[in-house]
Amino acid sequence: MKACGIIVEYNPFHNGHSYHLQQSKKQSGSDIIVAVMSGNFLQRGEPAILSKWDRSRTALMGGADLVIELPYLFAVSPAPIFAQSSVFLLNEMGVDAICFGSESGNMDSFYHTISELEKNKTLYDQSFQSFIKQGYSFPKASSLAAGSLMLSSNTLDLAKPNNILGIEYVKAILDQEFSIKPNTIKRIGAAYHEDQITAHKIASATAIRKTLFESGNISTNEIKEAVPDYTLDILESHLQETGQFTTWESLYPILRYKLLSSTPKQLSELYETEEGLEHRLRSVISGANNFHEFMAALKTKRYTWTRLQRMCLHILHNITKETAAEWVRKGPPYIRILGMSSEGQKYLRTRKKEVTVPIVTTVSQYNHPMLELEQRVSSIYYAGYPQAFLSKKIKEEYSTPPLRFDRSKGLFL
Amino acid sequence: MKACGIIVEYNPFHNGHSYHLQQSKKQSGSDIIVAVMSGNFLQRGEPAILSKWDRSRTALMGGADLVIELPYLFAVSPAPIFAQSSVFLLNEMGVDAICFGSESGNMDSFYHTISELEKNKTLYDQSFQSFIKQGYSFPKASSLAAGSLMLSSNTLDLAKPNNILGIEYVKAILDQEFSIKPNTIKRIGAAYHEDQITAHKIASATAIRKTLFESGNISTNEIKEAVPDYTLDILESHLQETGQFTTWESLYPILRYKLLSSTPKQLSELYETEEGLEHRLRSVISGANNFHEFMAALKTKRYTWTRLQRMCLHILHNITKETAAEWVRKGPPYIRILGMSSEGQKYLRTRKKEVTVPIVTTVSQYNHPMLELEQRVSSIYYAGYPQAFLSKKIKEEYSTPPLRFDRSKGLFL
Repeated sequence: MKACGIIVEYNPFHNGHSYHLQQSKKQSGSDIIVAVMSGNFLQRGEPAILSKWDRSRTALMGGADLVIELPYLFAVSPAPIFAQSSVFLLNEMGVDAICFGSESGNMDSFYHTISELEKNKTLYDQSFQSFIKQGYSFPKASSLAAGSLMLSSNTLDLAKPNNILGIEYVKAILDQEFSIKPNTIKRIGAAYHEDQITAHKIASATAIRKTLFESGNISTNEIKEAVPDYTLDILESHLQETGQFTTWESLYPILRYKLLSSTPKQLSELYETEEGLEHRLRSVISGANNFHEFMAALKTKRYTWTRLQRMCLHILHNITKETAAEWVRKGPPYIRILGMSSEGQKYLRTRKKEVTVPIVTTVSQYNHPMLELEQRVSSIYYAGYPQAFLSKKIKEEYSTPPLRFDRSKGLFL
Repeated sequence: MKACGIIVEYNPFHNGHSYHLQQSKKQSGSDIIVAVMSGNFLQRGEPAILSKWDRSRTALMGGADLVIELPYLFAVSPAPIFAQSSVFLLNEMGVDAICFGSESGNMDSFYHTISELEKNKTLYDQSFQSFIKQGYSFPKASSLAAGSLMLSSNTLDLAKPNNILGIEYVKAILDQEFSIKPNTIKRIGAAYHEDQITAHKIASATAIRKTLFESGNISTNEIKEAVPDYTLDILESHLQETGQFTTWESLYPILRYKLLSSTPKQLSELYETEEGLEHRLRSVISGANNFHEFMAALKTKRYTWTRLQRMCLHILHNITKETAAEWVRKGPPYIRILGMSSEGQKYLRTRKKEVTVPIVTTVSQYNHPMLELEQRVSSIYYAGYPQAFLSKKIKEEYSTPPLRFDRSKGLFL
């Protein structure tokens, strides 16, 4: 069986994701789609609006055959770590190709840009350091440094988020010498940062969330036209069950508590709290009544919103620099299956003897410090739910076996 | 000017407290009443239903002339530490007498009991240790050990909470060789643990809180008859402003978060988390959807409810064994004035040159690690308020000068 890997977040799953899934299968000529997906927290340092289980459901219905969790520490990470660990997991799963969406849509541009950056490395590094010294953020300094190199015209625009991620995927394959063929599919209809639903049928997840929060209504025409029916059903039943979607605002009371109750020294030991940010955090927290106010007061030219959000998540989850450094160095220590189709299950069997790290299906049957961390992180995610759900959801996280989907019948088993 | 000291919590201030204040002044023949009062958290390990400011207001209106804050670490402590630090502060304030309420109401019984316990110390200690080994809690073992001594008939009943506190006040005076005359006033109309308002006019604070929470209504006849009008007004305006009273249930989401996000090792470093309780805490927290469920699952014969609640507060406030041990050894490092009448203010002037620790009026003008801790503790107390109040209340805590009350006009200045 030929397998194609994709790296996703699905917050929530929409028509653009569906298109990407179909195209990935078609362009790579694969029988199986393996999706590596962030859990309850996402690369941009935010809680997902639906749990990993609900999002896995949509992934399977949309066409994925295996959904593998990217563990928290790798998911909530800068692009290079996010990319390397995802590609590592896909390689473990023996995929022949990976397909990623990009603004460019042209693989040659990716190879060309990587080689140009490599050739001009010394100049690039000097230029990058000088922008950092001027107080620019990491991504802004990267993009400015690349711009300053006067590269040829078919170099990628490095201000575009999906181009950056794509470069990291390709570099991860090349660096780790994997025999995976990278493939890119041009994103259509909506750019990632676009925050209004303009082109019907295809809209960005950002635009969908914005409409969802602003209208407080799932079944507006804009949303109905932008997501498949099963996403709509899952959004609806989630809202009926819990009465809300988890956002940073739901988690703000506990972040605030954590910042108010910790000493600066304790904060400085946590992952990504660098360069005296512990003092800045404490000085802005007492004046901010919600997360948006807090972030607006915290933000400087030096740090992107995303970088600060990731730091806040690591603080919330009490993750020390030491723990993070250890695991980021080691890479993902297991392959956790969140869901599978019947075909995915067959494919998984063929991989059992090939993998270098264990395959985890039921968490309660496998002890690992990183799974304990995943449990802790999930229990904090569910703290954003109404009080009565907590114990049920914590138990669910611990004992839920992988979702099993029969595609021919369109049913979960 | 002759001064009498009292040690209070006022949660909330009721007719019994008013009676105690009047009797204290009368029996001691004093011009001035100095009240040492717990801040936002109380000796039994609970948040107060009204803030220290609101409770200071009622204290002044009820007849106190100076209200001094018992710092958090001494207030939320077992009876001996609570008593020693309170009596220390009253001695600093130069009081001639202290008056405490007790079930007994007879000073001779206090002296007699202390001397009997002293005489039988070896036997008492042996007996106490044997009850502890049988798994009884500290207060239960004390009471059983005293019972086993077959003391004479006019020995105090050590199962009564106010007798225990009274003994500790008297011992604190004797141990520290203070020239303060202890005095006791028999509590009338309601025992501390009584939880229904039975005798009108005098009811326990416990019974008042219970009626308040159950009826959800301040102006029931039971409450109206049990508290002075000014307490009723303050309860009413607090409820109008914030829509709630702070209880352990309001703080439970952040306690739960703290327990879920901490490692057992981190918990074991916190004050009063002893004998492997860190594991027990973590095993019961994920199944409990509210504080009452949590406590019911946590409680064993070994620990009193009060002891466990105090531990939970220290966990919530992130107070290490090290910090606690240091300050408990050193004793209160300052005298913080929460409120004063005109007479209290005059009296305070006469003490300025006599005190051995500094007098603090405005927190923002005085740096001290214990005041920083007090700020932290208060900011966590206000986390139980609706979200929009937090920054205002934190600022208030930091910048509010002592309340000033003109008794002749019945007005705050």
